[in-house]
Amino acid sequence: MAENKKLVESITSMEEDFAQWYTDVVKKAELIDYTSVKGCMVFRPAGYAIWELIQKQLDERFKATGVENVYLPMFIPESLLNKEKDHVEGFAPEVAWVTHGGLQPLQEKLCVRPTSETLFCDYYKNVIQSYRDLPQVCNQWCSVVRWEKETRPFLRSREFLWQEGHTAHATAEEAEERTLQMLNVYADFCEEVLAIPVVKGRKTDKEKFAGAVATYTIEALMHDGKALQSGTSHNFGDGFAKAFGVQFADKDNTLKYVHQTSWGMTTRLIGAVIMVHGDNSGLVLPPKIAPTQVMVIPIMQKKEGVLEKAAELKDRLAAKGFRVKVDDTDKSPGWKFSEQEMRGIPVRVEIGPKDIEANKCVICRRDTREKLECSLDELEAKIGEVLEKMQVEMLENARARRDAQTYVATNMEEFRAIFAEKSGFVKAMWCGEQACEDKIKEELSVTSRCMPFEQEELSDVCVCCGKPAKKMVYWGRAY
Amino acid sequence: MAENKKLVESITSMEEDFAQWYTDVVKKAELIDYTSVKGCMVFRPAGYAIWELIQKQLDERFKATGVENVYLPMFIPESLLNKEKDHVEGFAPEVAWVTHGGLQPLQEKLCVRPTSETLFCDYYKNVIQSYRDLPQVCNQWCSVVRWEKETRPFLRSREFLWQEGHTAHATAEEAEERTLQMLNVYADFCEEVLAIPVVKGRKTDKEKFAGAVATYTIEALMHDGKALQSGTSHNFGDGFAKAFGVQFADKDNTLKYVHQTSWGMTTRLIGAVIMVHGDNSGLVLPPKIAPTQVMVIPIMQKKEGVLEKAAELKDRLAAKGFRVKVDDTDKSPGWKFSEQEMRGIPVRVEIGPKDIEANKCVICRRDTREKLECSLDELEAKIGEVLEKMQVEMLENARARRDAQTYVATNMEEFRAIFAEKSGFVKAMWCGEQACEDKIKEELSVTSRCMPFEQEELSDVCVCCGKPAKKMVYWGRAY
Repeated sequence: MAENKKLVESITSMEEDFAQWYTDVVKKAELIDYTSVKGCMVFRPAGYAIWELIQKQLDERFKATGVENVYLPMFIPESLLNKEKDHVEGFAPEVAWVTHGGLQPLQEKLCVRPTSETLFCDYYKNVIQSYRDLPQVCNQWCSVVRWEKETRPFLRSREFLWQEGHTAHATAEEAEERTLQMLNVYADFCEEVLAIPVVKGRKTDKEKFAGAVATYTIEALMHDGKALQSGTSHNFGDGFAKAFGVQFADKDNTLKYVHQTSWGMTTRLIGAVIMVHGDNSGLVLPPKIAPTQVMVIPIMQKKEGVLEKAAELKDRLAAKGFRVKVDDTDKSPGWKFSEQEMRGIPVRVEIGPKDIEANKCVICRRDTREKLECSLDELEAKIGEVLEKMQVEMLENARARRDAQTYVATNMEEFRAIFAEKSGFVKAMWCGEQACEDKIKEELSVTSRCMPFEQEELSDVCVCCGKPAKKMVYWGRAY
Repeated sequence: MAENKKLVESITSMEEDFAQWYTDVVKKAELIDYTSVKGCMVFRPAGYAIWELIQKQLDERFKATGVENVYLPMFIPESLLNKEKDHVEGFAPEVAWVTHGGLQPLQEKLCVRPTSETLFCDYYKNVIQSYRDLPQVCNQWCSVVRWEKETRPFLRSREFLWQEGHTAHATAEEAEERTLQMLNVYADFCEEVLAIPVVKGRKTDKEKFAGAVATYTIEALMHDGKALQSGTSHNFGDGFAKAFGVQFADKDNTLKYVHQTSWGMTTRLIGAVIMVHGDNSGLVLPPKIAPTQVMVIPIMQKKEGVLEKAAELKDRLAAKGFRVKVDDTDKSPGWKFSEQEMRGIPVRVEIGPKDIEANKCVICRRDTREKLECSLDELEAKIGEVLEKMQVEMLENARARRDAQTYVATNMEEFRAIFAEKSGFVKAMWCGEQACEDKIKEELSVTSRCMPFEQEELSDVCVCCGKPAKKMVYWGRAY
């Protein structure tokens, strides 16, 4: 067991140093590698395969609501970026500029897209003429660039992968409906696929997207009690349409501006999965996004028939559509267990000579370490059951942890006391004035996460100024 | 039929002006839109959906050979690009340079990847230590940038989408094997999925990739007799490994350089599909990459029960896995036929009151315009048959056209005479000297497309200089 221990000891425990634990998991599970390009990372096969499963399942949900995929250029001319005032102010300080093409300086510099609202406006202006051309419900999967100073794998990097949906509608109502529809797609996806519970709500004006009328968000809570904004959906009203002149001839033959939305999710979701589900043995992946769901590990594999039986079990499971591998390397079983745990593979199947004799195997669940004996005759059914149960229970457990880290503050003393000792979501009433929001942020180093759709009346007055309260707000330290 | 005619007349005929015909199809079939960014295009929903089907089917073929997907940064520091001499000379004149990040000038300028050999070397240097870490067989789907002066939709643009595979092996033999394996994957994909016949062969040294020991290619012939390089696979030997220091400890405990390959296919494949299969009514899509395979078009749709029946047929076909839509807009049937033809939808199903009464419908194939009556009881089976037959026959027909446009030249007079009147592939013997290759290019404005694997001995002597011939070469004008 010495070598086994070595692999495990190489991760810092999360109680000791959560940030270091995170970095260790990302490296040891071979998700990410650093590069010569500061702030940019390699998504290694194990990391990218998770993203592919996220893409596939999210894309199916998009298409079920009528979304069509497109691809727009990665470059935005400076003059195009400058057209919408709030937007350019929000993004100009953090974009990368292309100034030379080939051996020539460019006549107009181009930024690498930090987001594509401006390009979609330019495109929609071309293709929308009449109400018959509406709605436009487009999405693209691509990478974007934001010149961040501090970077962390998956959570914040200079280039990251995402999807960005952009829609144009004939009416304000339809735009608002689409904004909320996509937020709900995101929330359901997080809970049903990533097993991450989220709080749905609206951002305060201070925290909304540059150029939006309203920004909606889903907020998740990590193991260390910090919040992670996991997806946002914006309603732009007709602000961008006016700045870019995106008009259509309506049924009444008058020219009107379209109403637009955008919504995005990124590779930071993988960071969320790590920080919600991971433990001191490494990554724990929900079955639905695990590139390998089952690892078959032969015990005493040199004994006759063991490797053959392991391969047979793998083939049987693969035939039923499970993503399965067999670890037939010459490492010890203990080492293989540690690796399978580090990589977050949801289930391992142990099979040795005695098991074969008894026509059984041992199934071990990654998250709970629960072991159960299984007759080989029932293998496929049992694996299906275990994976399904694990998917459901991972969500339940994450929700219980989140709820246990959600507190209530009715005045500033309580508010201070909570963040002095703990970390988590704090629910508190707010008067709606940015002065109070600013003060809370300054004093407690927390930000408003959202005004949740599920409002509660914790008290009548603002936690900060004591004036009449308008909204309950979730507060927290955030990634 | 007046409006019907209008839509059709809006395309230039390919006999009159092939280049204009191509541009018309690309626009009218709504595949591409131009943008404010010179040389960059929007892939519209109908265009991007074709790319998604190409990606899916090519990716499955890759994974079946053990390929793993990754994602590397889009930026390459200048010093990294400069490490391999031939490579930098080939690409530096056409890259876009990022010189500013946020509001600051960068210490070292970064180019937007024109291809990622240098980044993969940098990555492999980190992750390869011993023979146990080999082979590395990675691929990424991404966009790349090359600052082209003349651009054409799909065929040549400043930014395009592609996949680039990059592998590292312990031995030269294994690298050569992988290079050819991927070329075969490409060739099979073109023929079986895109219904495009290709010539497989090796590029001459003059035409090979910057930094490669050997470049293999698949070459297709377009309707106008011009060649299109449709996929390439490169063997780098250990040249990049030496430039970047990518070494591994072999089983014998000595340090050795890895042997590398790369291979890529791009969105120009969509251009190939248009120019091989299209006709004067528009696009013709092979069923396997048609986003919509069947369009159900109701006739006299205001009559009771027609729209309901059309929807029912659509649902029945969708349930069998066909990609199917019903056109229930208020346009005339003739107009709908023209649109379906322009968009290259492989099959339309016509259903009207008389058909319903007779329990039948009419199936019309896009490529041959062949119409057949079909009992509604046999709809699913018949549609399956027609699509399968169409997929096969499109390849056969394309092959027959290609063969009819493939000529033989045994001396320069014949060579000149062919290109004076015609366009196509010309097979001719070559001595192997670049002087002859240069002379042929200068005199006839044609390039060597490849030295095909299937060699023929057309004569003993070089078509140009009359010295002993070493290879048969395919020549042609190329996109």
